[in-house]
Amino acid sequence: MVTFLSGGTGTPKLLAGVEPVFPAEETTVVANTGDDVELAGHLVCPDVDTVLFLGGDVIDRETWWGIEDDTAVTHDELHRIAADADLAGGPRYLDDEAQTSGRDIARWRRFSGVAEFMHIGDRDRAIHLTRTGLLDEGHSLTTVTRRLADALGVPWTVLPVTDDPVASMVHTPEGEMHFQEFWVARDGEPTVEDVEFRGGAEAVATDAVRDALADPVIVGPSNPVTSIGPMLAVEGVREALEATTVVAVSPFVGEEVFSGPAAKLMAATGREPSTAGVAAAYSFADAFVLDAADETELDRSVVRTDTEMGTAADATRVARAVRDALDRAR
Amino acid sequence: MVTFLSGGTGTPKLLAGVEPVFPAEETTVVANTGDDVELAGHLVCPDVDTVLFLGGDVIDRETWWGIEDDTAVTHDELHRIAADADLAGGPRYLDDEAQTSGRDIARWRRFSGVAEFMHIGDRDRAIHLTRTGLLDEGHSLTTVTRRLADALGVPWTVLPVTDDPVASMVHTPEGEMHFQEFWVARDGEPTVEDVEFRGGAEAVATDAVRDALADPVIVGPSNPVTSIGPMLAVEGVREALEATTVVAVSPFVGEEVFSGPAAKLMAATGREPSTAGVAAAYSFADAFVLDAADETELDRSVVRTDTEMGTAADATRVARAVRDALDRAR
Repeated sequence: MVTFLSGGTGTPKLLAGVEPVFPAEETTVVANTGDDVELAGHLVCPDVDTVLFLGGDVIDRETWWGIEDDTAVTHDELHRIAADADLAGGPRYLDDEAQTSGRDIARWRRFSGVAEFMHIGDRDRAIHLTRTGLLDEGHSLTTVTRRLADALGVPWTVLPVTDDPVASMVHTPEGEMHFQEFWVARDGEPTVEDVEFRGGAEAVATDAVRDALADPVIVGPSNPVTSIGPMLAVEGVREALEATTVVAVSPFVGEEVFSGPAAKLMAATGREPSTAGVAAAYSFADAFVLDAADETELDRSVVRTDTEMGTAADATRVARAVRDALDRAR
Repeated sequence: MVTFLSGGTGTPKLLAGVEPVFPAEETTVVANTGDDVELAGHLVCPDVDTVLFLGGDVIDRETWWGIEDDTAVTHDELHRIAADADLAGGPRYLDDEAQTSGRDIARWRRFSGVAEFMHIGDRDRAIHLTRTGLLDEGHSLTTVTRRLADALGVPWTVLPVTDDPVASMVHTPEGEMHFQEFWVARDGEPTVEDVEFRGGAEAVATDAVRDALADPVIVGPSNPVTSIGPMLAVEGVREALEATTVVAVSPFVGEEVFSGPAAKLMAATGREPSTAGVAAAYSFADAFVLDAADETELDRSVVRTDTEMGTAADATRVARAVRDALDRAR
């Protein structure tokens, strides 16, 4: 049994080809929930969903979010109505009082659906409606995720890291904003002063996550700040990682990041934006998989391979390196 | 200036052809909100929406609800997911505590979105998301309805009868159910023991509605129990109707109803299911428009015409009879 920690892009790309090395029935994926939002009253879980859609073989492999060939009739109509009603777009946060009322799971990350700022496809939306309906009926996010995974035919066990609310908040000179505003609405452009995991101090890892983290753990090439960071902020996760064998795949080649805002966010939170910085952040990791061109010297076991993953075959190659690193670390 | 009281089918069919008789800029439509529901967290207002979609010329004229040629990708996917996740359909009421928490406007009529029991088209859904978003941003249903009417290019002033929650509950031998369960999910088949307008005693007509009811009022051929009944239950409406000139169009021809559950619901609530029963229920009406074949004798002024409305020209003919009746009653 192995457990992957996953954000929304790097680790899913790895998961796309792990099967020959890590059989699905022996694999658990713990997904970040720090970038979840409640949009139009529905809980949207971008990282959980990418893992579910990948496992259900419906993921849009161009974007690594959303469902392939999905329509967006409702989303487009929301923008048409907003334009015709003279309602401004952009993230329309609900007010402070509304941020902490109603469903506990959605605290600090509630947005009106008016002129919907995230692109939600019509089939994708059905996932969020079903999830939120089941939450409102009294089920936990863990239970709901299992039901959705079963419905989609996902081969792995997929677990949200916590059933409690954690909101990744980005502090900028313009004020604080939710990570989804920073990344989706603002294209990652605002200057970042700090990143806060609101609710992290009160959130606890689920029992299912604690059990999964007793197995060897693979930290995929995800963004260490906003993908893995929220998970580390949750009570029980860091301790579990320190107690088990952990292999991490660097999302950098030296100081070059493959994709996403990892470098900017690491620099803003006082980390070196590089493989060395990732290794420093992951003090619990026993071994690393680095790119063949990454000359970083680390104080832990290292396996090198071409870590660029454009295809499932690439991912299988990286998975074999992970397997080697796990064998060396144990 | 005239004001129409409207439910979801009979009166909208009349509104479809009133323009030559009652110019839109001098016409207000007060719509029933007793059959509104919160479905998947979004406020759905069937009668308000039928008036908005009619006025915006996007109504589906086969069903008299929803948007013409709308797709239902999300709705269909909700059913596919529910089937794949082994989640039962049917109206999935939230529990008692959830019925009165959160948005006040949605009290006693909250349903999970799982296996969505009402058919909501993709464009139609965008209306509900925008409405609910604006409500969550702090606007009243009256204000939100005006914004939506402007966006859709609706020629009339459209007003929800109240900004307070009123839920039409149908009592049956199987227990109580919301009118939408009775009518949409159960096809109007359960035996009706009584109809209750939950929240009606605390609900008040808006100032805009009170102003509109100072003008001559036309009660369209709507269901007297669940379309007009909830409006009469709201504080300020019955008194206003007693003080102004009111013409009502009977939804019956003698004892035959044109469509819908009016006869069954009238019988269950102790009224004669006929034009005579409608006249008894509408003690505030000064005159009636009856079908040419309706031989009912009434103690008030009567104008007769063919009241079957298949086309806009039919509606114009009925509107002329309404104008005659208003002239006689004043």
